[in-house]
Amino acid sequence: MKSDIEISQATSLTPITEIAEKINLSFDDLELHGKYKAKIEFDALDRMKKNPEGKLILVTSINPTPAGEGKSTITIGLGDALNKIGKKTVIALREPSLGPVMGIKGGATGGGYAQVLPMEDINLHFTGDMHAITTANNALSALLDNHIHQGNELNIDARRVIWKRVVDLNDRELRHITVGLGGPINGVPREDGFDITVASEIMAILCLATDINDLKRRLSNIVVAYTFEREPVTVGDLKIEGALALVLKDAIKPNLVQTIYQTPAFVHGGPFANIAHGCNSILATRAALHSGDYVVTEAGFGADLGGEKFLDIKVPSLGKAPDAVVIVATIRALKMHGGVAKTDLSAENLTALKNGFSNLAKHIRNMRKYGLPVVVAINQFISDTDKEIELLKELCANEDVKVELASVWEKGPDGGIDLANTLVETIATEENNFHSIFSRDHDDLNEKVETIVREIYGGSDVVYSKKALQQLASFKKYGWDRLPVCMAKTQYSLSDDPTKLGAPSDFDVTIREFVPKIGAGFIVALTGDVMTMPGLPKKPAALNMDVDEKGNAIGLF
Amino acid sequence: MKSDIEISQATSLTPITEIAEKINLSFDDLELHGKYKAKIEFDALDRMKKNPEGKLILVTSINPTPAGEGKSTITIGLGDALNKIGKKTVIALREPSLGPVMGIKGGATGGGYAQVLPMEDINLHFTGDMHAITTANNALSALLDNHIHQGNELNIDARRVIWKRVVDLNDRELRHITVGLGGPINGVPREDGFDITVASEIMAILCLATDINDLKRRLSNIVVAYTFEREPVTVGDLKIEGALALVLKDAIKPNLVQTIYQTPAFVHGGPFANIAHGCNSILATRAALHSGDYVVTEAGFGADLGGEKFLDIKVPSLGKAPDAVVIVATIRALKMHGGVAKTDLSAENLTALKNGFSNLAKHIRNMRKYGLPVVVAINQFISDTDKEIELLKELCANEDVKVELASVWEKGPDGGIDLANTLVETIATEENNFHSIFSRDHDDLNEKVETIVREIYGGSDVVYSKKALQQLASFKKYGWDRLPVCMAKTQYSLSDDPTKLGAPSDFDVTIREFVPKIGAGFIVALTGDVMTMPGLPKKPAALNMDVDEKGNAIGLF
Repeated sequence: MKSDIEISQATSLTPITEIAEKINLSFDDLELHGKYKAKIEFDALDRMKKNPEGKLILVTSINPTPAGEGKSTITIGLGDALNKIGKKTVIALREPSLGPVMGIKGGATGGGYAQVLPMEDINLHFTGDMHAITTANNALSALLDNHIHQGNELNIDARRVIWKRVVDLNDRELRHITVGLGGPINGVPREDGFDITVASEIMAILCLATDINDLKRRLSNIVVAYTFEREPVTVGDLKIEGALALVLKDAIKPNLVQTIYQTPAFVHGGPFANIAHGCNSILATRAALHSGDYVVTEAGFGADLGGEKFLDIKVPSLGKAPDAVVIVATIRALKMHGGVAKTDLSAENLTALKNGFSNLAKHIRNMRKYGLPVVVAINQFISDTDKEIELLKELCANEDVKVELASVWEKGPDGGIDLANTLVETIATEENNFHSIFSRDHDDLNEKVETIVREIYGGSDVVYSKKALQQLASFKKYGWDRLPVCMAKTQYSLSDDPTKLGAPSDFDVTIREFVPKIGAGFIVALTGDVMTMPGLPKKPAALNMDVDEKGNAIGLF
Repeated sequence: MKSDIEISQATSLTPITEIAEKINLSFDDLELHGKYKAKIEFDALDRMKKNPEGKLILVTSINPTPAGEGKSTITIGLGDALNKIGKKTVIALREPSLGPVMGIKGGATGGGYAQVLPMEDINLHFTGDMHAITTANNALSALLDNHIHQGNELNIDARRVIWKRVVDLNDRELRHITVGLGGPINGVPREDGFDITVASEIMAILCLATDINDLKRRLSNIVVAYTFEREPVTVGDLKIEGALALVLKDAIKPNLVQTIYQTPAFVHGGPFANIAHGCNSILATRAALHSGDYVVTEAGFGADLGGEKFLDIKVPSLGKAPDAVVIVATIRALKMHGGVAKTDLSAENLTALKNGFSNLAKHIRNMRKYGLPVVVAINQFISDTDKEIELLKELCANEDVKVELASVWEKGPDGGIDLANTLVETIATEENNFHSIFSRDHDDLNEKVETIVREIYGGSDVVYSKKALQQLASFKKYGWDRLPVCMAKTQYSLSDDPTKLGAPSDFDVTIREFVPKIGAGFIVALTGDVMTMPGLPKKPAALNMDVDEKGNAIGLF
């Protein structure tokens, strides 16, 4: 069996200029990055807006398990399969972070015969977007601390700086630090910490901005600290939104690549869905919508995180709701949700499958609360038995939801034909009554949190820390009390406890702290023990990585 | 008068593929980054080695002053002028760091009608080399701290970690920090600090490596910490040289751009010359040497720093010494070395010029100690008076050195014809007896330091701190005592005191600390108060930066 990188390196890529021609983009519309990657120029993005809008398919999943679900793989394979059945289809994905690539998860470019290429470039520096975001984020920190050091005209309380530095790596050592030590010439001592780049508000802003002016407006609104009078201090107050936008002027342009089967794929923006809003950029999704009759996109982690945030945070800015939702699961992962250990997943276990199905069922019901048509896609494994497949179909029938097996990892587009046909039919025939689960403009922040906890997570109640309660009060004063909420929660459970698998009930969710992201336009609610800076495992993936003397990557997966 | 960025944006650039054709590189030899920047592929670099080797001109300068010298401007204008007089010439420069770009200095792409383009791209992210170096450096930190946190098999003494994190920004707040706070799940508490990326050993390694295997070998040799038994711990011990080389696999390829007058320019690698070795990459310089009959390159800051390091650190790896050295000065800067304040520089002052000439004279004599032909280039200003020019020529005649006025900033290549002709003649006729100023293999580290201080700086003696003396003893044990030295010293003075202008004498130089850079292959000697992380000024250049809605840069200079 070939590894992902072996399949990738054995694929003869088509020049990106030819992929671009498929969606009516010429050489002049592209900023090339090597022969197989390109950014789309602003003029082309403007021109594309006149094209008709395609149908939007959102791919989400059950809560992830160590068994793996293959959401990106299904997203890519479904796009290839739709093209194979004659539907002009474009894919829109997030770009990977080096943190998980070097850590435990590996890349984020699909797998087997459902990959976006060149996988090694996309998984490493790609076109530099992550680096531009890291740089803008940390330039803001340096300019902010310099302002305080050089006289502090804005009267900033150094103890109340909320803007953190970032690196695009898993580095637990930087979670809690003190900076500015070593005497007066070395800055002002204070507590600080680093987040991973994908959690940066600037990543969220890049993904939500509709053009450079909107980018600059949002950057200007970022709240970085409070004064000694507890008034918010913004990037606009520091007069540096122009410099930050300049640093981001290329990163904001969507990136175009291809799948193994030459399907055009926009890969742009990559916030994590557990600690950020989890969706690729508005500009890339809109470019895709104006390029194909069908667009397949994904949101991060399970439907409780990326799915909910796509619908509640991204859709209002995107101006378009999905035409259908695909929920990805594997029989192996459902058995883990039913209590089976990872080492026992190859043995048939109908009871565990039935118990674990509760997780999938909850996500199906959740997505239907938004009035959207839902299709279940089972990413098939060789260990799945006929009886397990039969049971799963029966369980899906009980939920009155269509289910299709997909084997795109092994067979490429041929393994996704049924799924593709079912989606075309579903979009053509099923009713779509998209609506929000709360009143976006009228519900208060805590009401939104409570609605998500009860309706989506299935929890009983919300417990607020003392700090969170104080924040709710102060946010009213600043006019932030009706902003959308972006939940930061473990991806492994519907609850805020990663050990509670399946569909837990009778649990409370604790809100430890709120983090205002006024430039992005939402308030992050930190639940449980979720961390905005991951750590590396005992044996990081980096230990297996290498490069040969011709520059070919080895050991990326 | 047009600003640099206005001249840049008004220039109609030639596609980089056509610039590449001038030096016999085809489309397949290039990794395009947009239409006007490209990296050179490894196969092409290999093929180019068969071409004959051109003549090498090293451009260096007097100690810089706030009056500005224009070394990059002269380098670029000289390259354009050599092409204009019919000599096939290629330029090799360093790439800028965002620290000074956002801080005080502005970009590093020349000025007026002697610029490399596109200046805004080169000054911002360029082709991502700085970001790749930052990432490799910080991935090493994260993996090292993770090793200590996850059981510390190598028995590393966390108090003796010498590897620092980096950002490509001026951020004094990160000079002295504590990391790993917040309890056992958040790493191991210890003191730490950030350097600016250009001071990273990985930057030095990228600039000195001759291919990917050499890169990996050097990365493997980096000493990151000591064990509790005081034994050095290397990247090879951590088994991560493959992952770090993978992160750098594209950054190591030289970048090709063009001047306003379509001269091919390799811009690659950018260590500062005060806190690092100050020269562009070996791979880029070699590519240039195999592309043109003449190559014009520069080393950072004055001839005491970049010049000395080019000759003592870069030349042995490059395998070629310069055929001539150009020392750049301005009459204004010489007057500052003669005691005139910046505000009074426009007034004629022959006494100050004569006094300040001592700085230029010392650098002329120093470069001749290496057996090299020297030419002085005066970057002409409108305020230079006829009498001042006459005096300067007389002073140069006393030193028996050729001097030419150059006005490439105002006139482009036409302003550098005399300088170009003089260099062609000098290389053809003057003797070149290049030799080192010490015995590279036999002199001990302290002997090398003392030779540089006495012969190049003109100092009396070297004072070692207690720590430095302990290090000299321990380095013998590790076999590092005969490595080359890389002096870290203020750029503003020949001494280690930035206020001592002209040609000071009767001074001692203090060595505060040595920093082993075993992967780069040298030991850094920190003198005086020199810092490896700069700070921002009260009004950083970033405050003037902006971008318009089409993505055009505003306020870069």
